[in-house]
Amino acid sequence: MADERDSRPRTRTTPPSRMSTVDEHEAQSRLSALGFGADDAGALAAHFAAAERAGRTGHGFRRVEWIAHLGADPRARPRRVVAQPAYERWDGNGALGYLVLEAVVAAQLASPPERTRLVAAARTFPTGMLGYWTRRLAERGLVAMLTATSPRRLGHPDGGPKLTGTNPLSIAVPSSDGRPVVADVSMGNATYGDVLAGRASEDELAPFGGEHAHKAFALAVGLQLLVAALTGDDGFGAVLVVARPDADPVPAFRQLACGVRLPGDR
Amino acid sequence: MADERDSRPRTRTTPPSRMSTVDEHEAQSRLSALGFGADDAGALAAHFAAAERAGRTGHGFRRVEWIAHLGADPRARPRRVVAQPAYERWDGNGALGYLVLEAVVAAQLASPPERTRLVAAARTFPTGMLGYWTRRLAERGLVAMLTATSPRRLGHPDGGPKLTGTNPLSIAVPSSDGRPVVADVSMGNATYGDVLAGRASEDELAPFGGEHAHKAFALAVGLQLLVAALTGDDGFGAVLVVARPDADPVPAFRQLACGVRLPGDR
Repeated sequence: MADERDSRPRTRTTPPSRMSTVDEHEAQSRLSALGFGADDAGALAAHFAAAERAGRTGHGFRRVEWIAHLGADPRARPRRVVAQPAYERWDGNGALGYLVLEAVVAAQLASPPERTRLVAAARTFPTGMLGYWTRRLAERGLVAMLTATSPRRLGHPDGGPKLTGTNPLSIAVPSSDGRPVVADVSMGNATYGDVLAGRASEDELAPFGGEHAHKAFALAVGLQLLVAALTGDDGFGAVLVVARPDADPVPAFRQLACGVRLPGDR
Repeated sequence: MADERDSRPRTRTTPPSRMSTVDEHEAQSRLSALGFGADDAGALAAHFAAAERAGRTGHGFRRVEWIAHLGADPRARPRRVVAQPAYERWDGNGALGYLVLEAVVAAQLASPPERTRLVAAARTFPTGMLGYWTRRLAERGLVAMLTATSPRRLGHPDGGPKLTGTNPLSIAVPSSDGRPVVADVSMGNATYGDVLAGRASEDELAPFGGEHAHKAFALAVGLQLLVAALTGDDGFGAVLVVARPDADPVPAFRQLACGVRLPGDR
């Protein structure tokens, strides 16, 4: 990863069209000034840069200022409190959720499951663009499914209290052609990143789907309770399933799609 | 399960309002006449009866006639070809998908995972109302997430070939109050069951979500490729994640919801 990060500023010849007011190097400097170590500042800046490149600017460099206001301890380290062959439990332990998932992904890549593993990460917030984490697993040959909870911003389409986070679900599947498919879908009609980016107001946040919004609401509720049940914590958390594939379905699927843009394509 | 099935006709004093032309006993008789053994015919009829009770009549008794036309071997038995503590692989082996999932669920209940288990079921179609299977796991205290593929009926919202099944995702979370939450969401604006029920035409089937239909499409693609990658088979399949919960979040969530109807509530 260090090499990949280091090479980005050199290989990016034109800035992304929706680049924020800072770039990856500047973001890293600001994060270092907030007290984050070099590795952590680099990991955070790389995530924000990837979000900018993907056009998901709500998850991009503007999050640096937001982090400054979150007041997280920049020196906190996530802890892996249970490590079994097919199950891990992590505790964010006061670290930013981004850095919890950074550590979780690195641990999976360092020691992939024999067949499959479920990772329950408690006290893990904020988690950013989930496709960033699943893509990294898929780029190394692993199937990944990841969800995460966040402050309650979605209610039932018919009304009532806010009950769930926007609770994105990301699914990434590796491909022998080097182009994994990476779905990354929030259950909201906008993301809180969009709110931060000024493209939506918090009041407008609701389950997506129009006349079928009960479907996105049902998924948001299911994911909310799944995370709560498996992390065993009242706070925000993440659940990752990672598995070795038994087949390589993406190339044939791309052929079938005849050039249709698939999730995660750039 | 035998007791539960046997008791249903006696405890149902009024027929569900959208009951089809047959009831559970008649469905079981017809299935027996197709060559299904008593246990299998009972399991199938119980599934269809549950769908009728849930108002999902497209997955209900009318499927009996549909099964007759599928021409499945009523004597085929699903096989569990890999059984590890945290991973199982099943092969439908020519049996109806309903009966594969019936066997998978029974196996999980007979031998629950210590923490978590992923079950990949190849050649598993049709699978019916997925919430029926996850609910049974949650009623016995297990968190369950299940998806399954089916014939390609959804394309990209902007057009192009049909690429994915309606690919439902069901998530069930147990509750100490005896009322699990059971989300069960197809990625289509209708189900094929609705087509069979005459409530939608096959041509109208598309990802749900209106202006956000790319989200349901992305989930359908992710689930399609996840199942294909993990079952290692070109046909239709199912993937189940089952886990023991570390917390009991549903009662507090119901309290927060203040009477709002939650997914799977009857």
